[in-house]
Amino acid sequence: MSVSSPAPTDDDGYRAGAVDLLGILAYGALTAFERLAEDAQAAPTLPDKVQLATVAARQIDHFNAVSAQLASMGNEVMAAMHPFHSPFDAFHDYTKPRDWYEGLVKAYVGDGFAADFYREVAAFVDAETRDLVYEVLSDEDLHAYIVAQVRKAVEHDPKLAGRLSLWGRRLVGEALSQAQRVAADRDALTSLLTGTVDRPGMDLAAISRMFSRLVVNHTKRMAELGLQA
Amino acid sequence: MSVSSPAPTDDDGYRAGAVDLLGILAYGALTAFERLAEDAQAAPTLPDKVQLATVAARQIDHFNAVSAQLASMGNEVMAAMHPFHSPFDAFHDYTKPRDWYEGLVKAYVGDGFAADFYREVAAFVDAETRDLVYEVLSDEDLHAYIVAQVRKAVEHDPKLAGRLSLWGRRLVGEALSQAQRVAADRDALTSLLTGTVDRPGMDLAAISRMFSRLVVNHTKRMAELGLQA
Repeated sequence: MSVSSPAPTDDDGYRAGAVDLLGILAYGALTAFERLAEDAQAAPTLPDKVQLATVAARQIDHFNAVSAQLASMGNEVMAAMHPFHSPFDAFHDYTKPRDWYEGLVKAYVGDGFAADFYREVAAFVDAETRDLVYEVLSDEDLHAYIVAQVRKAVEHDPKLAGRLSLWGRRLVGEALSQAQRVAADRDALTSLLTGTVDRPGMDLAAISRMFSRLVVNHTKRMAELGLQA
Repeated sequence: MSVSSPAPTDDDGYRAGAVDLLGILAYGALTAFERLAEDAQAAPTLPDKVQLATVAARQIDHFNAVSAQLASMGNEVMAAMHPFHSPFDAFHDYTKPRDWYEGLVKAYVGDGFAADFYREVAAFVDAETRDLVYEVLSDEDLHAYIVAQVRKAVEHDPKLAGRLSLWGRRLVGEALSQAQRVAADRDALTSLLTGTVDRPGMDLAAISRMFSRLVVNHTKRMAELGLQA
């Protein structure tokens, strides 16, 4: 653990919060695998299919990395993921892409928003866990690919641009609604952010600034795609 | 290239055959990814899902390894796969698993049969390509998992055992029928096995012995699963 780490691992509440964060990442990677594999099936060309399948495969590497980290902390990945089945499954049920482009926007905008949030939480865990979170959340080459694909498609198709703009807003709305559910259910995770008597965290003003950062990044991603946030 | 290699790379016919073999492996890996990802969706438990998803992800590593080898030979993977779309797609269309166990048997028995055949062909290519083929075809941990799952399921269910035995025979029948189609269409690949004036290959007796080996291995795999070949 690095000197800068704010989180003593002998704090049970902290540990439970870190396990929750890793459980979310593990289940997130697994459901991302499934979704990307499904999107790959709908790919318009074989190179597109390979692109999505490659990113899907990487989710499994992420899953295995998180699973190993949990094991090294004496936790089992299946148990750690369990509390998050229902919010993730609900999110995916409510946001089933109706076509190839909705799938791409979901992979960029939906996952991007979630990733930003996990990175915010990761600021409050030990250095080793934090490095793992950052590693698992970087999918730069997929992003460049999606931006190119979506920009090209919406450039001369204002109707598609309108539909995908709405879609991006819906994704964030559903993500926030599931995140609220998780925050209400998982005290240990929430108190990673808000802190405890013994551990510094964010006050209300800091949480509000965090949400501003999330929204700014979201708007930036939508603009990159040529869409209105 | 090793001393034992029978294949001079300045032989155009040989090169075309080797590219065909790699094209088959690449497309085989890509379709295996898709099929395993689909099977993962139907997994009865989350650990089963992780198991299949992990093996699906490994297919993409295989695909990328084969793709890199093709590139180093000056060939493009998309072009190399092209002749094999239709036989592979037909095979998968004709052998859609109707349940979880049919999917597992297909992944073990169908892929096992194909892998044995690719290994036979690989005996006639240069050492580097051959090593890659062997590496891409080994999925020992999936096999142990499938054997355990299927054995447990058929042990007290003779009806399932009967259905899966029939299914195993059908898989091999369809695989052979598509293989014949490929052999008829792809002279370069066929002549890897049969040889040319300048390059040694198998005579009819050797080809017949090869088929005997394939059948013996198939029977062994079915027996491992507790099924009749």
